This record gives sequence, structure tokens and C-alpha cells, in this order.
Amino acid sequence: MKLLNVVDTSWLFVESRATPMHIGTLSIFALPEGAHDEFVQQTVALLRDTRTFASPWNLKLNDGALVTSIPRWVEDDDIDMDYHFRHSALPKPGGERELGVLVSRLHSHQLDLNRPPWEVHLIEGLAGNRMALYTKMHHSIVDGGSGVRLLSRMYSTDPDARQMLPPWSIPPSREPRKAAARVLSPRALFEMARSGGKSGVALLRALRRWVESTRDEGSNLKVPFTARRSALNSRIKGSARRFATQQYDLGEIKALARAADCTLNDIVLYLCGTALRRFLKESDRLTDAPLTAGIPVDVRPADDEGVGNALSFMIASLGTDIDDPLVRLAAIKASTREGKELLQSLPRSALTPYMMMIMAPYMVQMMTGIGASTRPVFNIIISNVAGPRRPLYFNGARLAALYPVSLLTHGAALNITCLSYADTLNFGFTGCRDSLPHMQRLAVYTGEALAELAAVLRPA
Amino acid sequence: MKLLNVVDTSWLFVESRATPMHIGTLSIFALPEGAHDEFVQQTVALLRDTRTFASPWNLKLNDGALVTSIPRWVEDDDIDMDYHFRHSALPKPGGERELGVLVSRLHSHQLDLNRPPWEVHLIEGLAGNRMALYTKMHHSIVDGGSGVRLLSRMYSTDPDARQMLPPWSIPPSREPRKAAARVLSPRALFEMARSGGKSGVALLRALRRWVESTRDEGSNLKVPFTARRSALNSRIKGSARRFATQQYDLGEIKALARAADCTLNDIVLYLCGTALRRFLKESDRLTDAPLTAGIPVDVRPADDEGVGNALSFMIASLGTDIDDPLVRLAAIKASTREGKELLQSLPRSALTPYMMMIMAPYMVQMMTGIGASTRPVFNIIISNVAGPRRPLYFNGARLAALYPVSLLTHGAALNITCLSYADTLNFGFTGCRDSLPHMQRLAVYTGEALAELAAVLRPA
Repeated sequence: MKLLNVVDTSWLFVESRATPMHIGTLSIFALPEGAHDEFVQQTVALLRDTRTFASPWNLKLNDGALVTSIPRWVEDDDIDMDYHFRHSALPKPGGERELGVLVSRLHSHQLDLNRPPWEVHLIEGLAGNRMALYTKMHHSIVDGGSGVRLLSRMYSTDPDARQMLPPWSIPPSREPRKAAARVLSPRALFEMARSGGKSGVALLRALRRWVESTRDEGSNLKVPFTARRSALNSRIKGSARRFATQQYDLGEIKALARAADCTLNDIVLYLCGTALRRFLKESDRLTDAPLTAGIPVDVRPADDEGVGNALSFMIASLGTDIDDPLVRLAAIKASTREGKELLQSLPRSALTPYMMMIMAPYMVQMMTGIGASTRPVFNIIISNVAGPRRPLYFNGARLAALYPVSLLTHGAALNITCLSYADTLNFGFTGCRDSLPHMQRLAVYTGEALAELAAVLRPA
Repeated sequence: MKLLNVVDTSWLFVESRATPMHIGTLSIFALPEGAHDEFVQQTVALLRDTRTFASPWNLKLNDGALVTSIPRWVEDDDIDMDYHFRHSALPKPGGERELGVLVSRLHSHQLDLNRPPWEVHLIEGLAGNRMALYTKMHHSIVDGGSGVRLLSRMYSTDPDARQMLPPWSIPPSREPRKAAARVLSPRALFEMARSGGKSGVALLRALRRWVESTRDEGSNLKVPFTARRSALNSRIKGSARRFATQQYDLGEIKALARAADCTLNDIVLYLCGTALRRFLKESDRLTDAPLTAGIPVDVRPADDEGVGNALSFMIASLGTDIDDPLVRLAAIKASTREGKELLQSLPRSALTPYMMMIMAPYMVQMMTGIGASTRPVFNIIISNVAGPRRPLYFNGARLAALYPVSLLTHGAALNITCLSYADTLNFGFTGCRDSLPHMQRLAVYTGEALAELAAVLRPA
């Protein structure tokens, strides 16, 4: 038995049918040649029949979704395997479109909080001798970074390794944890807030003042970087989600960053901003002011003596008001440079209060569910999670892509998270079905934005 | 715009994540030979691209799931087709097991009440050159009988008919309605209660007295036919469902009924009772007292002058306390004969009050959600719906089976509904996943019960 801390508990209160608080991953495997059906069947049998559960896969809430008492994790010694592990298939032709549709649907359904809150779906019928694995887990257990680490238990860097087991049956290794993933999940925000040292009640009271100021047009208390409302900041109407993906060659993005004398993250923002500009313009929803993105960043504080980086946060322009590609990129570069300089000028002790100042309204929006009725702090969170660096395998099947599938909150109807893996950068777009019709175009436009930038930077 | 009546509105209040109030059908098609993939693709394209919607497919609630004002149906002129029509596939080998698993899952998810509350899923990958169609619709729009009629709009008795359209695009025909289907849906119960002429409030007050009496062990007010609690009468813990099917040759069942000198319905009860006895005994949950079933029946009232039958209701023993097949069948026969004699002795004017006496506690259990905390009125509802009599086709594909998928309420963790179609009788078993592990065995045992009875009645 383990009590949930304040942060974890908060996900249970925020959970609703329209805003379920689970996150996921989508793994694509290239199967060994000539062994498609056999490999899928063997993997299904392996996953279905492996019924030992390491923490946290065996934990459920004592009280289910009721949250009538103090929530705590208890071990479930009677896990209904066929509920948690599911075997699905794509209709023909089994392409990226059919996969996106299925994952969108699977991600739209709430987890059953009377059980250990996770599901794993093995998906057959993916064209090109491939197979997919979609996992979901409640955010009260994992965030994006730890979710990827949990899943990684099942992989090996050795293509010849066999007798490998599903992730839930493998206890955590003793290896020291790597640096925290740079994912600005709601969970990470609350953790940061908590580390500020204030009590929960006092914190909430302070935060509420910010929210009140954002609602009061005449307030003198200015929330910095207040963004304009956009189509991305609507209330989440229902549970239905859209999910789309885009995979890049990491080397190509790095080359572009060198050519443009900017960071890899600037290129990521450029691709997102360029695609968002085109997407919103098409539906006549582009705002005059540039969209802004909240971005988790590593900074070296001003008083740092080499002990290490700190995770902080900045808000940057996505340049969506600018038509010319190079001018747009320059605006993004300038915006992130200034943001980072400001962060680096702060002593370590000031980083958390600074973060809180920016993030407070956003957090209260989530906690109270009033999101989308206040002005947004920023228009979208774009996270860049550092994933596994070496190519991974599962019983000889090569992990070809690893996409993050994220959660939405009221006022944040689109999430873009990138996950680096080996020599690829994997974008996952998670959006509200009602607010963002044709969202899959965003992924397409992001891809085309790269080609356009390459042509502009390196004219033939 | 159309106001919902009291009955329809009640489904919105009863709706919860654990007890979603939608019902469904599962149609199995035998495809034209040599045209599997092509036929499936053409049907998907046809369904996806037919975007005209006849009533009630185009109706949604004015207020979604909130029910803050008086609910009414409004026409939705911006229907998100890709939400309502879905193309799914079965994993290999694509047998009845894989189909049952998928339909169980699809039936477990709540409908989005912000949209017209229906979904249609075309399922490919079914072995034996077949295809399946699963439909779901909210009970505030249809009951079992009208749901089958709605779906039937898409079929023809002509195997050569082509250019056929999906059910949602076909307006209701002008044909007079056939006799009401004999399905004892909650909806039908409320309709009957309403036709009793009492106002809603007075009715509810009267009903509540019955419920109080069932809770008070010392009460002198006896609810007739009060059943023992059984595994079938537990509270519904979560939304997860199990679904299983069994198809019989209608001629074979009729022959058995003739051989045993009983009704077709007696054979249905025998098959259910025999399977339930074996199923509950295996898990050591068989009660000493026989399980009882609530059964909708057509009766000719005592004062009827040939104007027609009336829909009424009786409670019968399922003989689950009896080991010998023929003695068990005899007990069921005696039970239904006496029940029917009692009903037939009543004048037409007394039928509804009599029904109310039996059904009141059940209805209040549903309305108030206190089901499973009172003694059950009966252990299970077994309905027998009269479906289409002639073989049906859709663009040349033969409808081979048509199964009902039903809803559960607290205290009613298993539903068995049979639907006759052409020369078949199609059983749909819908159960609570948590209360009824291995529920698919029930369907298997029901099949084996037929063979056993045939052997006993017609020894070789």
C-alpha cells in the first residue's frame, strides 16, 4: 500500500470523460523477414500468457474512481489479463491512416480506475511487414518520460536477443535514472510547484490570484506573455481525440539547425509554427498575433558551478504571423534566444518562483477546470522528450518508430510532443476531435515544412 | 425540435459509465463468392460517403449529456461521419472468438451524447468469407424491437437487389407497424407504466413503497415472486462487458417443442436454465432455489373479443435446482403454464396494474440506481424478439445471423435476448465482465443443452 502524493492525486480529480488523464506511446516494429504472421501470433501468446506483474503495472487505486477516501495504491493480485492486454487489427490496406484512426479511438476511451490503470494493444495488419504496439497508462502513475522508460524495459539493443518478456513482467533495473526527460507534462509542472516549498493550500491561493487577474480585464496585475485566444485554446467538448504522427531523420534536422545557425529545438518550433500557420489560415482561424508555445528547456543557472542543468520553462513565439520562411525562423530564433538569456540570468533559487509566475494560471486552469474561460498563458505546449539513443529490438523485431500520445486539458486542445529515438525524431500530435477537424493535415504540413526550409536554406 | 417524453428522458438520468444505456445489434453477412475484399471496400465507401440522415439518425440532444434543461431532440446538421461510422478489423484467425472480443469492447464504451447517439461499425476479417456489422444506439431513441426495424431499412428480401443504401439514409416506410416486439426492455416497461394513467410523481411514490418493503425483512407487504440473490444480481462495477452468441435452427427447436409438448419459449427457457445451472455450479455459485426469469409474453385477455393480444409479463422458474433434464423441463413447463393461466384469467383492464405490481421494484431499482441492494424481483430477463421472417440481403450479401446486444442495470448483470430471423433463432448474451468471468461458456453450454435435450427426447 502506498499513499498517493498531492500531485498524483490531482490527476484523479481532473479526470473527466472529456479530459481523461492518460498518456500513451505508439511503437512501430519492423518484423523479421518472412515471419510476419508467426511473429505476431507468438508475440500475442507471449504477452497474453505472461501474468506476473512488476510495479507499477500491478497497482490499482484502493477506491477506484470514487476517490471518497484518501487515495492510495494497493497491489491487485487478481488482474484480468484479457482486459489489460488486447489484440487488435487494422482494416486493409493497413496503412498509416488506418493506424492513426485506430489509435485515436483507443486513446479516446477512459481507463477503468477500478483496475490497474493501463492497457496494452498489439495491432496486427500494418502494411510493410510491420506491427504496432499502443500502450496507455494513467498520468497518476507516469509522465511522458517515465512512461517511455517503463516501456523500454521490454527492449534490448541486441538484435539477436530472444526470450524477451513484456514490459509489465520486468522489475525496474538498478541503473541510476537518466536526466529527467524534458517533457512539460502537467505532472511535471505540479512536481515543480511542489518543490517550491509552499504548502498546497497557500500555493493554490496564490495561484488563484493570477487566475482572477486574467479574468479581470482592468487588473493591474499582469500575467507575463499572455497569449491571444486561438482555435487551440477551446474547451474540450468530448472524449474523442485525433492522433497523427510524423517521423524525421534526426541528422537532417541537425544539419538544418547548423545551416541556419540555430538549435535543434528552434527547427522543431519552426516546423510546428509553419504547419500551424498553414493549417489555421486554411480554415480562416489564423490570429494576427503570433501563436506562442510553452517549452520546457534545460538551463544552466547563473550561479551554477557545473553541478548540472535545471529544468525550466520558457514561452516562445511560433512566428505564425510571418509569411516568409526565413523571417519566421529568425523571429523564432530571436524569441528563444531572449527567453533562454533571461532564464540563464536567474540564480538557481529564482528559477522555480519564475516558473511559478508563468505557469500558475495554467495549473489553476487545469485544477479547477476553468481552462478555456480565461486567456491562455500560451497557446500550446510543445515538448521534446529525449528517448532511447540506440536502436532497440524486441525478440528480433526492430523498433522503427516510437511516438508519444498525449493528454489534453480544457484550454489546451492540441498537444505536440516529440520524442527522439536512435537517429529519428518522432512527432505525436494529439488533438480534440471537435476543435480540430482535419488535424492529420498538421502532420503532413509539418513534413512539408521541412522540405521547404531545406530548399530555402540550401538552394540547389 | 421534439421534447423527450418522461420515459425517454429517464434513460439519460440512468446513464452512467458503469451502466451505459445503449443497445446494439450484430449482423453477420455471407459475402458473394470470390468478392471478399472488393465487397468490403465497396461497402465501406458506400457507408462512409452516404451522408444524408433520416430521422432518428440525425437527432441529438440539445444539451448533450448535461441534462441541465428540459431535454429535447434537435436536428444535427453537421454530423461528423467518421465519428459515427467506423471501419474495424479482426485479428487472425478472425473467428467467432475474435469477433466476440471486439464487439464486447465496442459495446463497453459510452456513446457521446453531444452527438446523435449512434455508431455503426463495419468489421472485416471475419473468416469464412463473411463480414460483420455492429450497430449501437441509445435506448432513449430505440428499444430492441424498433432498433431491429430501424436497421432493417437497409435490407431487401431480393438477393439481386443492388444500389442499396445504409440504414441512416432511408426514411421510415409508410407501412403500418407490426405487432410490438416481445422484448422486455426497460423502455417498454416504462411505457407500460406510463400507460397505466398515473402521473409520474404519484407512480414513483407508489413504486417506492414496494422497494421499501423489499428492504424491510419484517414487512407484511409481500412482493410476489421475490427471488433469491444470485451471481446474476450483483451491482455493475464497471463499463466492461462480455458478449457471446449462439445460433439455432428454428425448425429444430420447434421439433423439440412438439416432441416435448411444450412451447418454443419453454425450450428457450430450458436451454438458458440448463446452461445457467452448469455455469453457476462450476463456480460454486448455484443457489438452492431455482433461478427465475422475467419473460415478456403475448396474452389474450379473458375479456378479449378477438381484437388482439396484449403484451404482458410473467415470471417463470428456470429449473436450475433440478438435475434431471426431463424433470427440469417439466418444472419449466408447469411454471410457464401456470403463469400464463393466471395472466389469461385477468381482464384486459387488470393486466397493466398486475404488471406494475410485479415490475415496480425492478423499475425503481433502475430509476434510483439502488439495484443490487434490494432483493431481486427475478434473477434475469430473457426476451424473445420476433425479427424478420424472410431471408434478407444487402447488395447481394446474405444476412446469415442477427444477434441482439443488450444493456445491463444494477442488479441485472446478465441479459439474454433471442431474436428470430428467417429459419434461425439468434441468442445474444450480454454480461458484466467482472461479475461473470468465462461468460462465453454460457453460450457454449446453451448449445450443448440442445443436443442433450434432443438425445433425451428422441433416444436413438
